[in-house]
Amino acid sequence: MTGDLTLVEKLVTTNEARIMLLVLDGLGDIPSREHGGQTPLEAARTPNLDELVKEAVCGRMIPVLPGITPGSGPGHLALFGYDPVRLEIGRGIVEAAGLGLELTGDTLAARANFATMDNQGVITDRRAGRIPTEKTAELCRILSTIEQIDGVQVQIAPSLGHRFVVLFKGEELDPRLSDSDPQKEGQKPLPVVPLVSEARKASEIANQFVAEAHRLLRGEQPANSVLLRGFSTTPRLSTLAERFKLRTAAIANYPAYRGMARLVGMDLLPVVQSVKEQFELYLEQYQQYDFFFVHVKGTDSAGEDGDFDRKVATIEEVDQSLPVLLQKMPDVFAVTGDHSSPVPLKAHSWHPVPVMIHSPVCGADDVSRFTEKQCNLGGLGIFPAINLMPLLLANGKKLKKFGA
Amino acid sequence: MTGDLTLVEKLVTTNEARIMLLVLDGLGDIPSREHGGQTPLEAARTPNLDELVKEAVCGRMIPVLPGITPGSGPGHLALFGYDPVRLEIGRGIVEAAGLGLELTGDTLAARANFATMDNQGVITDRRAGRIPTEKTAELCRILSTIEQIDGVQVQIAPSLGHRFVVLFKGEELDPRLSDSDPQKEGQKPLPVVPLVSEARKASEIANQFVAEAHRLLRGEQPANSVLLRGFSTTPRLSTLAERFKLRTAAIANYPAYRGMARLVGMDLLPVVQSVKEQFELYLEQYQQYDFFFVHVKGTDSAGEDGDFDRKVATIEEVDQSLPVLLQKMPDVFAVTGDHSSPVPLKAHSWHPVPVMIHSPVCGADDVSRFTEKQCNLGGLGIFPAINLMPLLLANGKKLKKFGA
Repeated sequence: MTGDLTLVEKLVTTNEARIMLLVLDGLGDIPSREHGGQTPLEAARTPNLDELVKEAVCGRMIPVLPGITPGSGPGHLALFGYDPVRLEIGRGIVEAAGLGLELTGDTLAARANFATMDNQGVITDRRAGRIPTEKTAELCRILSTIEQIDGVQVQIAPSLGHRFVVLFKGEELDPRLSDSDPQKEGQKPLPVVPLVSEARKASEIANQFVAEAHRLLRGEQPANSVLLRGFSTTPRLSTLAERFKLRTAAIANYPAYRGMARLVGMDLLPVVQSVKEQFELYLEQYQQYDFFFVHVKGTDSAGEDGDFDRKVATIEEVDQSLPVLLQKMPDVFAVTGDHSSPVPLKAHSWHPVPVMIHSPVCGADDVSRFTEKQCNLGGLGIFPAINLMPLLLANGKKLKKFGA
Repeated sequence: MTGDLTLVEKLVTTNEARIMLLVLDGLGDIPSREHGGQTPLEAARTPNLDELVKEAVCGRMIPVLPGITPGSGPGHLALFGYDPVRLEIGRGIVEAAGLGLELTGDTLAARANFATMDNQGVITDRRAGRIPTEKTAELCRILSTIEQIDGVQVQIAPSLGHRFVVLFKGEELDPRLSDSDPQKEGQKPLPVVPLVSEARKASEIANQFVAEAHRLLRGEQPANSVLLRGFSTTPRLSTLAERFKLRTAAIANYPAYRGMARLVGMDLLPVVQSVKEQFELYLEQYQQYDFFFVHVKGTDSAGEDGDFDRKVATIEEVDQSLPVLLQKMPDVFAVTGDHSSPVPLKAHSWHPVPVMIHSPVCGADDVSRFTEKQCNLGGLGIFPAINLMPLLLANGKKLKKFGA
């Protein structure tokens, strides 16, 4: 049932209907005893969502496959209607796209962290004390003196916090490489290993880059080391415009999500601060697009930090901002997450994500609050996330009848 | 999950159990404010269904794929256990089969309407004021003077209302042709265009037929034009007898549904008027068959006309006729639709269709009325319609255990 939207693509037609996909990253949760057996969605005061949900249909979505915990990449691919199992997009390319870097067919990208290494070469902090963005920019300027390695061009670009991106541009740079990031503290950075023989050249370049970077950062503290992961090249994706005839825009603040959006052909609207401003940006751009992807990061960060109250607060901020939308309510309004990030787990998880679709023709169910438990009983059932896009198109009357 | 019933076919065994599949065409609906937020199923008085549902399991079925609005063809194929995505059957062939016309491998069929054209050649009424069946028969006799075109035999057969069927019999008539029906008034009939080069010959024959028909109908009013659509040839389908060892009969009144039934190998029982008579026909034929497909059209027509009360009335007629069945209750009795045709949409839709399976071994759930909302909570969940047939066979104890 999942994975192939060829039939959907054949039936697409265009009209004036506006669709908004509001993604509260890591939205789904599980109850914890500490918080009275409630989830953040249950604990949050959400009068506006409560009102909308009465005229919506709800359900829960399986991001990839039952039991599979997705990263943000697969989670978002599924939401956009791309098969996350067949289509693995490396985090390096996603981050690079999000930063607006120019990516060609022969670009190999890696996501990188500045990290702290002790004098035994052991990583003591994978995030170098979460150095600020400004410091990262400064360090990136130092690394930018590495302009090329064995004829391969090197490009460094700072991202948010301790994160940056390394691009290698040259021929025959196969991305099938292991990470240098050991994902744990107390270990040395790993050598980048070719996973197939074709990737030998790329691994040598990457390892030389790491060695050179460590040399350049020797005097720095705490950021005296780099960790690379998510080696990847640009995938050839049909855009949402090509597949679903949609004019699409992303209202997202973080490079990774902007990157995902850009890879599927969305226009990137300016970065703004609050959810309210994100919704206002939608109002401003209402005429220009018929599909708006709005991404809210706070729910995921709070879930990963195990911060129940902050997750509740983010949900309440979204709820309080909803009246902005009512000025020009999208014809189809979906609220969901790309995966669950339960507070008790402090991590992404496999739990199905609550989803709500609001439209004048969405049908009905007895869900009276947008929570995990109630969504279990919703009219959409429990379904693969890749089917969300066809449902949004259908609710926007953007799909013709199949067969006579 | 969907599409492949090979395993089911391998496990089929025969017994005396009788199965009835009662299809209320376009049954599913969505609430409308006008009618107090109710759907026709919710508004209808259905004491007999209410009684049956207590001993049944319910659910909702996705006819084809989430978000996909099926035509009657794909909708019924799925109900009969055929993959509607892989198996597209043209409406021409379906209609022709339903009229009992002889179809061979080299028959190209098109569904046709009589229509009204103004003196600019623009279609002003796609249905020629819905001329009666008798008038259509008379006009078909006129068109029958076109006996052949360039060596291709032409056969005309009247159907119901303003509808008729054209068969072209000859070699190399590829059905991959566009419709001449523009599907909208205010436009001229479209030329029949070959969608692949192999269909050039067929397109020329079809266009000559249209030109000749328009010449013959010049003096007629309002039916002075013909519109062709659904060009198709006979598919090679394994029958229900071959696949599931069932002796099957269709109790359906409309040619299109009789046609679908015939294509999967059902015997066509005589056309009767009321639902009560349809059920009486089942009683009469009880010994001869073990699978009865009973088709009720009224729910769909009412939905498409946006007529809430008529949809309610049809459901109530079905309910009031149910006591007839109690004389010889089918061992397995399923009630569902081939798709939804919500009154507020006045059209087919993608919304999952309520389904109820009644048998002594069906299991249980808490559904107390057969409505869309309650079926959301049923023991069958929300599932692809192609899985209905295995469930019916299982409830009839017609499937052996798989594996030891």
